[in-house]
Amino acid sequence: MRISELRVHPAAVADPPLRSSYGRHAPYALRTIVEIKTTDGVTGISETYGGEGPMAAIEEIRSDVVGRDPFQLLSLWRSMSESATDGDRTQTMLVPGENPLDKKTRTFAAIEIACLDVIGKAVGKPVCDLLGGRARDNASFSAYLFYKHGGGGGLGQDARDDEYGECLDPRSIVRQARQMIAKYGFREIKLKGGVLPPDEEIAAIRTLREEFGTAYPLRIDPNCAWSVETSFRVGRELCEELANGGYLEDPAPGLDGMAEVRKRLLAAGIGTPLASNVAVTCVAHVPEAHRQDAVQIVLSDPHYWGGIRRLQQLSFLCEALGMGLSMHSNNHLGVSLMAMAHAAAASPRLTFACDTHYPWQTERDEVVEGGRVRFVDGCVRLPDKPGLGVSLDYDQLARLRERYEKLPYRRRDDEAEMRKHVDPNWKRVLPRW
Amino acid sequence: MRISELRVHPAAVADPPLRSSYGRHAPYALRTIVEIKTTDGVTGISETYGGEGPMAAIEEIRSDVVGRDPFQLLSLWRSMSESATDGDRTQTMLVPGENPLDKKTRTFAAIEIACLDVIGKAVGKPVCDLLGGRARDNASFSAYLFYKHGGGGGLGQDARDDEYGECLDPRSIVRQARQMIAKYGFREIKLKGGVLPPDEEIAAIRTLREEFGTAYPLRIDPNCAWSVETSFRVGRELCEELANGGYLEDPAPGLDGMAEVRKRLLAAGIGTPLASNVAVTCVAHVPEAHRQDAVQIVLSDPHYWGGIRRLQQLSFLCEALGMGLSMHSNNHLGVSLMAMAHAAAASPRLTFACDTHYPWQTERDEVVEGGRVRFVDGCVRLPDKPGLGVSLDYDQLARLRERYEKLPYRRRDDEAEMRKHVDPNWKRVLPRW
Repeated sequence: MRISELRVHPAAVADPPLRSSYGRHAPYALRTIVEIKTTDGVTGISETYGGEGPMAAIEEIRSDVVGRDPFQLLSLWRSMSESATDGDRTQTMLVPGENPLDKKTRTFAAIEIACLDVIGKAVGKPVCDLLGGRARDNASFSAYLFYKHGGGGGLGQDARDDEYGECLDPRSIVRQARQMIAKYGFREIKLKGGVLPPDEEIAAIRTLREEFGTAYPLRIDPNCAWSVETSFRVGRELCEELANGGYLEDPAPGLDGMAEVRKRLLAAGIGTPLASNVAVTCVAHVPEAHRQDAVQIVLSDPHYWGGIRRLQQLSFLCEALGMGLSMHSNNHLGVSLMAMAHAAAASPRLTFACDTHYPWQTERDEVVEGGRVRFVDGCVRLPDKPGLGVSLDYDQLARLRERYEKLPYRRRDDEAEMRKHVDPNWKRVLPRW
Repeated sequence: MRISELRVHPAAVADPPLRSSYGRHAPYALRTIVEIKTTDGVTGISETYGGEGPMAAIEEIRSDVVGRDPFQLLSLWRSMSESATDGDRTQTMLVPGENPLDKKTRTFAAIEIACLDVIGKAVGKPVCDLLGGRARDNASFSAYLFYKHGGGGGLGQDARDDEYGECLDPRSIVRQARQMIAKYGFREIKLKGGVLPPDEEIAAIRTLREEFGTAYPLRIDPNCAWSVETSFRVGRELCEELANGGYLEDPAPGLDGMAEVRKRLLAAGIGTPLASNVAVTCVAHVPEAHRQDAVQIVLSDPHYWGGIRRLQQLSFLCEALGMGLSMHSNNHLGVSLMAMAHAAAASPRLTFACDTHYPWQTERDEVVEGGRVRFVDGCVRLPDKPGLGVSLDYDQLARLRERYEKLPYRRRDDEAEMRKHVDPNWKRVLPRW
């Protein structure tokens, strides 16, 4: 069995005007759907970052992919040139998918996941079962709350209803959480912070705790928007709320900053663990983050850590080092959701509910045949179907591609969107507070 | 596909009177061949430690193995009780296979490897290709020299010819190396030390260097027979000979001892790396060994580290920590040799030729159909056949079982053998020098 064809489908997905320290989400998020066909007539799929950069990176390795045995992934990894040394990589300013320094791992991941789907279908086994068997039958996800402006995303005829409305204060964040939990059954809650002044975000977390009680672990992620001093202050103020299964995610930039926050929290008797997908974005960072005690929970992601097998290895590394493991997410559709679910099932160390942006997308934008992937009690059940367990709806794919082709932008730029709609002089500054 | 049958075959393999710091090898080494049959009619095989202990450990999990889907290995691992906490494990006094503390990993490995063989056969792929594809097409092995008494092993009619004769001085060790290299084409050389006074072993290594030159990296393994002081002295005396791809293996017992040897060598400007399969025998040891700089090269082994996938994960861990990886061996037949070859192919980090006792066994004792596995230029070529790529010769297996049943012993005891033939008062003492 050889790979006979590689297809790359751009997709634009309606996305509400969510806010983060990067800025504001554009009306459409960009994704790429990858299809691999084999000489045996098997088709494997994956989903990755969208826009020109990620698509061009896949084109670059096309000749190395077509003709290859889909089982021989290690040699593909080896033949792909290293775009940067591991040690130099930082995600602080750039979003994943736009960082040239994660080009190799994210491009490889797009091919690896599609090849695992091919193998699973060829063999008649779900992807997680190809990797040594599942650690769990259900992948657990968290409610991922965002500050947002009104509007559901999309433009013109494509404009979506907005079931959540504007959410820019604690009361509306709680409302958002209630809606999301009612719909999906999530049992852990994450708030994307770094948007409003820290005291307002502290108030939001406290209100969430009051509303949901200790049964719903809480995490907050300001994407490095805070100084060490502010991070320490928020960590101290929220020491009760982030305890018991919660964490403080990327409060300050860099391993040094994170290590200093940790040191000060510990000195104040506060054990809240720090999680990161910014200070720690590649394998070489992990032992160093551990040595400095800068990060206690690594935020994995099959899309930019180099695929599902790499994520499983990361789980093993975190276990060996006694570190925690959770999972980061970007805007995504059902194919990515299933890749994340299989990665979660194959990674014994993963002990937190994974992040997911899935609730921010809708049925109208789903490319998965049969419609949206279902959640039960906040979990995606690992299917018994071969491969990832989902296939493509080609009509939907064509629709999302058409939209993409009409869009004036080819990469995610939350700063530009912020300047356009909120503040013409806006610029991402770290730390902001 | 379910596992419908688990068969466990004891085997006694003629073995020459090799010496180590443990004592002297008995006339027969004990091994166990494991066979798994599935409801689909596929048979998978593996080979593991022999004798009562290892066989009883497999029997203990029989009911958890039969009826299982061979793809669901992680749940088997999880359902097997932990015989000891990782942190307490040490191999210093006990040989692998006889240590109750490695019971879980070695027993799991025996099942895992047989299941991988089943999966490979069911899917039509070599084991290494099931694990992400091969890092190499040839697994490279080293010449494993031993001090030995005359005689080829075996008893009575089963007594083997002795092509190597008595080897208890530098000249005969060089002769042994020449014979072994002529036959197998090895390009790295290991001397099992800790047998003669250190100055005699230093002389042996120097003679090997004089004879073979720098193209053949050298390693010596006294199995912890030396004090820190002696280890340092030998390391200093052999600083030239063990450089350039060689290493000093387990000179002194314990992580503390190894760390002290390393510290003293570095202080003397000697960078010879220390390798270990005694101070480091489980995952939890690895980061600690790294932290203390006690070990620079981890000696893996799919048989006692928990299988081929676990070894691949260990490769990843060593890569993340910047540690080297080589492979240890015990007496073994062709099934183990192939498991080691697949493990080597699936582990990118492995950068040394693996140890193997294979040259110490002969055609008469091989259980692999078609006879002994072939070496070319010191390498075993990874086959394109499904699974491990070897199957069983049932006549041979019956013969080795018959021998086992007649033997008066059921576990390896090199000390007893030493007392019987060499010194009635002999006892293993560490450090001896």
